[in-house]
Amino acid sequence: MPSSGSETVAADDPLIRGILDRWDEQDMPADPWPFMAFCSIGRLRQLIDKALEAELKPLGLTRSGFFALTTLALVERRCTRLSTLSRLLMVHPTTVKLTVDHLEADGLVRRKRHPTDRRATLVELTEAGLERAGAANAALSAGKSGLLGTQYRDLVNALSPLRLAAGDVEL
Amino acid sequence: MPSSGSETVAADDPLIRGILDRWDEQDMPADPWPFMAFCSIGRLRQLIDKALEAELKPLGLTRSGFFALTTLALVERRCTRLSTLSRLLMVHPTTVKLTVDHLEADGLVRRKRHPTDRRATLVELTEAGLERAGAANAALSAGKSGLLGTQYRDLVNALSPLRLAAGDVEL
Repeated sequence: MPSSGSETVAADDPLIRGILDRWDEQDMPADPWPFMAFCSIGRLRQLIDKALEAELKPLGLTRSGFFALTTLALVERRCTRLSTLSRLLMVHPTTVKLTVDHLEADGLVRRKRHPTDRRATLVELTEAGLERAGAANAALSAGKSGLLGTQYRDLVNALSPLRLAAGDVEL
Repeated sequence: MPSSGSETVAADDPLIRGILDRWDEQDMPADPWPFMAFCSIGRLRQLIDKALEAELKPLGLTRSGFFALTTLALVERRCTRLSTLSRLLMVHPTTVKLTVDHLEADGLVRRKRHPTDRRATLVELTEAGLERAGAANAALSAGKSGLLGTQYRDLVNALSPLRLAAGDVEL
């Protein structure tokens, strides 16, 4: 199948332009768009992860710490089960435990026993944790590093239909 | 800063809607868009990775194997340095070596000595490797699993300005 319709892509995107040209030159069978889609999201994710790490480092937070603190700030009573936090963050329970260990050592969260379910551990945001979550989000909003400029909202809106199509329907 | 302008987001996106509501309820300082942007891309990436793995499994390929084979199919003479492959895939050289080990054991690529640079190792796609790359891309194009339907091109186009803004300018 030829890569027809490539003219719909911004001509000034060297990655896309380059892949489309090579795809034709090398007589690749099949359609180039799936491969390009996976490349696009993989590369954007890697660039954004690096930029996010650089923004958070002066605040003493890792990416996973930032996501955990902000998520806890948004749940009711700023307290939830470890297992729920793992589900909300789409991260393996073992990884969440490690993140919570680090945050607890820094006084940003505390573990609590569940009042009725003896097997469950609760994680609660401390006042210091709430302040740190606010500071991190404020720093990212201010965009000191120029990360994506003011395009955060564009990114959310552009990805919304794609996330929904990929099955991301549950909070 | 209030989450003004939330009306621009699809009202039927439960993740975005939920985060915006909780952000206001919990009196979070700062702007919610950076956090939502990082959540959006992280979740889309995870959903897509899972779907891609499921598509590739019947073909005996991992995600990293698929990216390596398709990338090799697109370079001149279908042969390049291990270090170049690592750069193109944005993956650590050690990881690329492991991927190449697996592909070589399956007869999909072969290692060669560089004719003039004794320290460099070349990786070349075999005929079997080219066939497998074609089959994988054809399977993804056919979209048997319904992964993203026909939205691959929309995804590429939506991400293009964001990738460029994030600094992805080099092939």
